Amino acid sequence: PKPANTAAPAPGQVTTGPIRGSRKVYSSPDGHPDIRVPFREIALDPSANEPPLRVYDTSGPYTDHTASIDVRTGLPKLRSAWLAKRGLAPTTARTIRPEDNGGAEGSYLVQPCPAPHTVLKGVEGKPVTQYEFAKAGIITEEMIYVAHRENMGRQKALDEAAAQLKDGNSFNAALPEFVTPEFVREEIARGRAIIPANINHPELEPVVIGRNFLVKVNANIGNSAITSSAADEVEKLVWSIRWGADTVMDLSTGRNIHNIRDWILRNAPTPIGTVPLYQALEKVGGDVSKLNWDVFRDTLIEQAEQGVDYFTIHAGVRLQHVPLTASRVTGIVSRGGSIMASWCLNGHRESFLYEHFEDICDIMRAYDVSFSLGDGLRPGSIADANDAAQFAELETLGELTKIAWAKGCQVMIEGPGHVPMHKIKENMDKQLRECDEAPFYTLGPLTTDIAPGYDHITSAIGAAMIGWFGTSMLCYVTPKEHLGLPDRNDVKTGVITYRIAAHAADLAKGHPGAKLRDDALSRARFSFRWEDQFNLSLDPDTACAYHDETMPRDAHKTA
Amino acid sequence: PKPANTAAPAPGQVTTGPIRGSRKVYSSPDGHPDIRVPFREIALDPSANEPPLRVYDTSGPYTDHTASIDVRTGLPKLRSAWLAKRGLAPTTARTIRPEDNGGAEGSYLVQPCPAPHTVLKGVEGKPVTQYEFAKAGIITEEMIYVAHRENMGRQKALDEAAAQLKDGNSFNAALPEFVTPEFVREEIARGRAIIPANINHPELEPVVIGRNFLVKVNANIGNSAITSSAADEVEKLVWSIRWGADTVMDLSTGRNIHNIRDWILRNAPTPIGTVPLYQALEKVGGDVSKLNWDVFRDTLIEQAEQGVDYFTIHAGVRLQHVPLTASRVTGIVSRGGSIMASWCLNGHRESFLYEHFEDICDIMRAYDVSFSLGDGLRPGSIADANDAAQFAELETLGELTKIAWAKGCQVMIEGPGHVPMHKIKENMDKQLRECDEAPFYTLGPLTTDIAPGYDHITSAIGAAMIGWFGTSMLCYVTPKEHLGLPDRNDVKTGVITYRIAAHAADLAKGHPGAKLRDDALSRARFSFRWEDQFNLSLDPDTACAYHDETMPRDAHKTA
Repeated sequence: PKPANTAAPAPGQVTTGPIRGSRKVYSSPDGHPDIRVPFREIALDPSANEPPLRVYDTSGPYTDHTASIDVRTGLPKLRSAWLAKRGLAPTTARTIRPEDNGGAEGSYLVQPCPAPHTVLKGVEGKPVTQYEFAKAGIITEEMIYVAHRENMGRQKALDEAAAQLKDGNSFNAALPEFVTPEFVREEIARGRAIIPANINHPELEPVVIGRNFLVKVNANIGNSAITSSAADEVEKLVWSIRWGADTVMDLSTGRNIHNIRDWILRNAPTPIGTVPLYQALEKVGGDVSKLNWDVFRDTLIEQAEQGVDYFTIHAGVRLQHVPLTASRVTGIVSRGGSIMASWCLNGHRESFLYEHFEDICDIMRAYDVSFSLGDGLRPGSIADANDAAQFAELETLGELTKIAWAKGCQVMIEGPGHVPMHKIKENMDKQLRECDEAPFYTLGPLTTDIAPGYDHITSAIGAAMIGWFGTSMLCYVTPKEHLGLPDRNDVKTGVITYRIAAHAADLAKGHPGAKLRDDALSRARFSFRWEDQFNLSLDPDTACAYHDETMPRDAHKTA
Repeated sequence: PKPANTAAPAPGQVTTGPIRGSRKVYSSPDGHPDIRVPFREIALDPSANEPPLRVYDTSGPYTDHTASIDVRTGLPKLRSAWLAKRGLAPTTARTIRPEDNGGAEGSYLVQPCPAPHTVLKGVEGKPVTQYEFAKAGIITEEMIYVAHRENMGRQKALDEAAAQLKDGNSFNAALPEFVTPEFVREEIARGRAIIPANINHPELEPVVIGRNFLVKVNANIGNSAITSSAADEVEKLVWSIRWGADTVMDLSTGRNIHNIRDWILRNAPTPIGTVPLYQALEKVGGDVSKLNWDVFRDTLIEQAEQGVDYFTIHAGVRLQHVPLTASRVTGIVSRGGSIMASWCLNGHRESFLYEHFEDICDIMRAYDVSFSLGDGLRPGSIADANDAAQFAELETLGELTKIAWAKGCQVMIEGPGHVPMHKIKENMDKQLRECDEAPFYTLGPLTTDIAPGYDHITSAIGAAMIGWFGTSMLCYVTPKEHLGLPDRNDVKTGVITYRIAAHAADLAKGHPGAKLRDDALSRARFSFRWEDQFNLSLDPDTACAYHDETMPRDAHKTA
């Protein structure tokens, strides 16, 4: 391969600065001046006689014009003081080995991020995970933080909260008029929500994922065999959260993945997810037959120590499920699913992930890495939606959910895929039933197979619907899905498209505060306050540019 | 204003040639060799061992490599022989007046299309409209044509038709396993479907619009005060039908609209719709208070003689409805609705469209112009969805539907607008109930207001859902909605996005043949037949280009 760009990212290599027409503000919950929750405030034209509109903000310090960003020193460790009080033990970190970086050496090796990082580990007998704290009746700082964040910093319920909830249809979810820290605790203890928050990710601005909270969006990044540099990956992270990604999955493969992940985590204000199986496979030279529990276990510890907040674990792909895919139109399309099915068939043996599931739980609990139970048998086409293979795996995921809870872990469940509209609710309802309302985290679903190049749209239709029906987080799909690697524009299009789907779902559920932004924008539109209309939109730059193509003169913006 | 481009379009000024990887074919129903229905056939790689896939084709002769296209002579008049047998009377056409073209003269005047055009008019006591023929038990050539078209040229039902219908959920629609001409006749007689087919539009390739048929898509074109040329407008038509628009509305205003409409109609294989109120207003110098029945009546006749297939008539905006909009966030956003509300308030009088509704019916019947009963009070924001004003108008539209049927006219009903997901079904169900299942023709609906620049997506979510619930035709929305005028790329994006929504709806309803294309594409995907995957997609050019950005080498397309 060509020499990689192994240079360390420089401070100016990531996108910084406020989003058009807005500024970053911080707000603290009553009685917690040490907890500072970020929002964006969009100022409106004086003629509107309206206060600035406050909106949820995923973008981290990068959009704070007062912040000094240097990716070499990493983000402020805002959780360190909270974690320090929990009796966690600093532990001797696992030694980094050449295979962690795919054997990259010398000029091929990306240097690790120089930001300081102390590795912590939970102690037996003391709560470590948000689930354990919740079960013990303890409200963590993370719970207080996300409650304030979900409320948009309001200190009490909106006057119209009850009316909005009544007007919506949440399909028996239990959205509250106002989110209290105690409500968050109850939802986590019930298994109905998670706060993915590895104790080794102190830079995290906590996020809650659950059907009784705002619908969240995940974006995928990752280097490939062709291109890889730490600067590129950190910029992909910063770019995707700028436009609204709540969490980011690093799906990197190939060389330097350990060190690139280091740069990502030390600079990530959002939860970071990974698929450890990918790196484990790299460590055995890409030979599926050589995968084993030891290399997988080693990889879990490696990534948990770095601070990864959730792991996709494909433990639901059991040997007995594989034959169910034989008559499918598109077989097994999940990469993790293919790897595990191949491993099982190779030697006709039960999945080592399934057999070692309790061991996996013990490791993940020790760092509070949340489970994202992978749907390795998700349908890859309309024809295969909701079939025996998919549902058999989903039933296994339900069984594993209860084991993980018993082990003190936080759990969410991954979902499809390709599903026509009339089968989406069936899928959602089965997930709620089998997994006892553990958060569902779906890819799309795509509602038709016939539009490659537009699969952000085929899937936004399904995503909005399944979000409405009860999905907690939507994994974005870009226009390049099925065709190639997304570029910067594709990532932005994917994130904005999925913010639309998530918001449409929040509106339909009757989320008490969701309509405030729609109403503010519609008032601006009706009053021809063009600048306000742009700035209140999900993508002010594009809205303004489109307007200016037709009517470039300023006069048209204030008419 | 700047001198318009008044040049007549030249033959090479419109886009011609086959869509990538496909060719035009014609198929005749058994026993009707004179009826030639167009389709596209997509040839697959020999390794697939599959016959070419036949798909519905809206693109007209422009994609037929054997056709010789000259916009000055217009398209072949394939309906003339059918119409000749119906006892229609050639009539002396209304004289074209300067005000028909906005007073354009000399070098400002676009010359009319030189294609020959004989004006026909129905005779009292003999059936003229498809509705009247259907009621009389007579199956027209148009009915035979659309039956064959809906069946994709198949001469019998698919083996799996019953199973597909059973698998879907059509919300009590009555999709047949196979569409017979008699079924079409029954649906039209029942008022549940229309074939917009002015007797003065012999170039038309007939299309059926109804909830028991494939969901259709409309695209809007139209010149503006800034740009106008006949060549531009004909190309917009050709471009939008190339990508899948089933009907096209010409929303032109300003000068030369009569003559530009002439060019459009003589070159349109699809039904053309207009809003006659716009031209009537031009004729009175844009002064709403001067609008009256005489100028409106004159405009109806003018456009009916040209061959417009359906008219948007805002007869549901009654004086008594206007106060219901007072407390809205976005008042009245429909242009036709605003004009009529203003007219009613100006002098506190009942709408002349409502009062002359039976007269309007008599004119439209005489040429078989279908009604598209306009929703002048459609909501312009989430806040105003399904409110008293909207529903009061919808109830009036139901009343008018029955009057139009009694007068022998074909009718469809226009719908919103901006509606959050949880209120879409209520809207659809009320329309079915109030209008006795007359076809619903909706704009979107947009499921959130917060994404200007992406309203093709906010609305595709709503369009797919309402199409599933029972809407017969979806009016596209482009990325420029609310912001500016769509360009060529925006039109294509809008049409493809709406083809996705329509197809997702067909799949969910369990349309017997809808899944054939998804399955063919998914098989191609699973076999890495890249060329087949591109060619089977809604936009082969974009799919191929996106693929090549990442993996340009041919080797990757045949791996």
